[in-house]
Amino acid sequence: MPDNGAEKTPSGAPLDESSVKAGFVHPADMAAQLENLSLEKQVSALHNMSKEDAAEALAELDGNVAVDVLENLDVDVAAQIIAEMAPDDAADVLDDLAEEHRDVLLEKLTRENSEELRNLLNFPPDSAAGYMNTEMILLEKYLTVDEAIAHIRSEMEEMENPYYGYVVDEKDVLQGVLSVRDLMLARPGTIVGDAAAGRAVVSVRYDTDRREAASLLSHYNFLALPVVDYEGHVLGVITYDDIMDIIDEENSADMLGMVGAHPEESVDTPWLESVHKRLPWLMVNLFNSAISASVVYMFEGTIAQMAVLAVLMPMVANQAGNTGQQALAVMIRQLATDRFDHKKAWLAVLREAKIGIVTGVFMSFVTFLGAWKFTGNATVGGVMGGALLCDMVIGAVAGGSIPLILRALGRDPAHASSIFLTTITDGAGFFIFLGLATLCIF
Amino acid sequence: MPDNGAEKTPSGAPLDESSVKAGFVHPADMAAQLENLSLEKQVSALHNMSKEDAAEALAELDGNVAVDVLENLDVDVAAQIIAEMAPDDAADVLDDLAEEHRDVLLEKLTRENSEELRNLLNFPPDSAAGYMNTEMILLEKYLTVDEAIAHIRSEMEEMENPYYGYVVDEKDVLQGVLSVRDLMLARPGTIVGDAAAGRAVVSVRYDTDRREAASLLSHYNFLALPVVDYEGHVLGVITYDDIMDIIDEENSADMLGMVGAHPEESVDTPWLESVHKRLPWLMVNLFNSAISASVVYMFEGTIAQMAVLAVLMPMVANQAGNTGQQALAVMIRQLATDRFDHKKAWLAVLREAKIGIVTGVFMSFVTFLGAWKFTGNATVGGVMGGALLCDMVIGAVAGGSIPLILRALGRDPAHASSIFLTTITDGAGFFIFLGLATLCIF
Repeated sequence: MPDNGAEKTPSGAPLDESSVKAGFVHPADMAAQLENLSLEKQVSALHNMSKEDAAEALAELDGNVAVDVLENLDVDVAAQIIAEMAPDDAADVLDDLAEEHRDVLLEKLTRENSEELRNLLNFPPDSAAGYMNTEMILLEKYLTVDEAIAHIRSEMEEMENPYYGYVVDEKDVLQGVLSVRDLMLARPGTIVGDAAAGRAVVSVRYDTDRREAASLLSHYNFLALPVVDYEGHVLGVITYDDIMDIIDEENSADMLGMVGAHPEESVDTPWLESVHKRLPWLMVNLFNSAISASVVYMFEGTIAQMAVLAVLMPMVANQAGNTGQQALAVMIRQLATDRFDHKKAWLAVLREAKIGIVTGVFMSFVTFLGAWKFTGNATVGGVMGGALLCDMVIGAVAGGSIPLILRALGRDPAHASSIFLTTITDGAGFFIFLGLATLCIF
Repeated sequence: MPDNGAEKTPSGAPLDESSVKAGFVHPADMAAQLENLSLEKQVSALHNMSKEDAAEALAELDGNVAVDVLENLDVDVAAQIIAEMAPDDAADVLDDLAEEHRDVLLEKLTRENSEELRNLLNFPPDSAAGYMNTEMILLEKYLTVDEAIAHIRSEMEEMENPYYGYVVDEKDVLQGVLSVRDLMLARPGTIVGDAAAGRAVVSVRYDTDRREAASLLSHYNFLALPVVDYEGHVLGVITYDDIMDIIDEENSADMLGMVGAHPEESVDTPWLESVHKRLPWLMVNLFNSAISASVVYMFEGTIAQMAVLAVLMPMVANQAGNTGQQALAVMIRQLATDRFDHKKAWLAVLREAKIGIVTGVFMSFVTFLGAWKFTGNATVGGVMGGALLCDMVIGAVAGGSIPLILRALGRDPAHASSIFLTTITDGAGFFIFLGLATLCIF
């Protein structure tokens, strides 16, 4: 009798024990186990598995690991495994390989197989087509529902779960969509073209950005989206599991990009590669912080006269930076999960400005009292409070607008946004604080 | 003939034109349209729709909007709409309502209906049970495959797509799982218990954290996961569309939490509520930055003698802060997408330390030259370079460890992590830089 408790496996995964007991290892678990082995053992394990199992495990492996394994496997075995993989998974793995190695493998495949893969490899990896599967059910519009069901049953053994049948005309142009459920519920003699008529079919073009495809599928809670060319011919489908991967990758890209790490970095990225990818942004950051420092330099004389200003100055910049980052995070998430129009976007910036003003007034009062008490000088307290309020509002507006400005420039709304924000809040904070101090105190 | 081009609708959504032409509006689109109306118009629109359409649209509305609408709808109409909703969606909406209002609505429902909803409302909203649907297909293990298919067909009209049939014993204890595809491919006379035997069934307990349920479903690419109690009785299922919502919410929570905004904040949160939720973290940030400021205060005399130190000091802290944030982002994403063990986690911190050392050596050489040239004083350059190297390594290690430490303390690995990180990199940066300067220059 299976124990349904969510036991912890050694890898920390909460797994139903029965999945082990039953002697069946899910490809995703097999991949997780493989990732903990040495390269040599990974290669020999894949070599000894059935080609079907190896194909499924390879598809689930982390990209860097899959490349290493493929490069060290016997070429014939590697080709046999590739041949067993779903075309979209095979294309993903091949895409990461060095071109010569890829060509060697492709030449070992049947001509049909290698042509299909070469075709998929031609699409940009970040487009809808880069994620599509070419195994799909097309239903000619003059079929009856029973013929359609029989057709699906006959195809089922060969392919994964067919979620939808796509109704097409004689030229394979998309006309409509029917779920397996729709077909089972329809009266047997119905023509599929009629059953699908008057119903919406949502599709994406092959060159649609993957993020747009993901937000469309998750907006509608579809299981799959058909991918079409400019004439409406069905080229393939993207399924919900690919979309989940896209969502995860895009979310990582946002968070990593925000602070200037590479969007695809993970703890499995070779560390020297990370050094190479982070250094340029650290240089940008250094350049930006040199700009803020030059603001401080303008007031070197003021600081020399009153060193306590150097004590308080970073607090102003830090607080405004945090305010800005809160606005930044809200806006980046909004752009990631919702498609919203210009008006709503700028209303959101206004919202951040209002939050910045109210939190700014509060914090500025607290710091006014604190700085006054600390320095025994009410003017210093006033300068600190005033500068903090101004800089927090600037931070809130900058944090809210930077993603929108980056998007309007056709760039990734998250990328390096935190670095630009800090430059603004540091520069403005130092300038206003030291400027006010120079005017008011001396 | 449908135009399959991804036309832009006014809301900016790339939509196939045919979904408009066909006169069918998907509930998700209806909800998006409703969200752009005034509250008054929202209420009257829902009032005038069919109850089925209103139920589907309400389920897709943003939480804040749904609450406002329900509070302003006629109670009887609201109850009728709730009655039409899928139980998990209805529970989600009711969960956000004030308790008195919720009770009034529940009393208008049939007893069976209201008991089911009260039952769902008792589960913590962040648990697996908080997202489960109680509509599911249970197959007694002695049924034949044909009987099972007939059963599923008879249930299909009443419920959404049934992805799996869960094989149970006479006490509804989970024994196995069969997809509709498995059933269609099985030999007609087979007993479902036999068809499911020797196959894994992965389940989650009702009190499993939603993030764990999400990572399990997406790890296995399942369409749905059964939710069971401690004895293995099937209580409901979580489907992939709920999991996509969870993934999005958790990702928002990570990014927002990192900078001390509320994990559930969005641009639709009333702005005064945001003020209320962000202020405590701004206070924490102020307190933390006061700690860094007190470090600077220790060296007030040094700064008074050499004000240029105040110019360079923020650059050290800023650069180390950025290094730390890169490590932080990589680690938070890793914890969000992968379940990894202690050893791998600390190896990842070591990886960050190595990256910190190499990028630190490079940046420290650049700043040494820059500061030397700028001040004309090689010692100042050396102090700056040395402090930067130390602080960058500290930032890298802190950024890598903070999420792991928070997790070990049973807290959210992302929450306020950026605020703590900045305190460390600012404090350490100021201390090392000014301390070295005091030792070496005077």
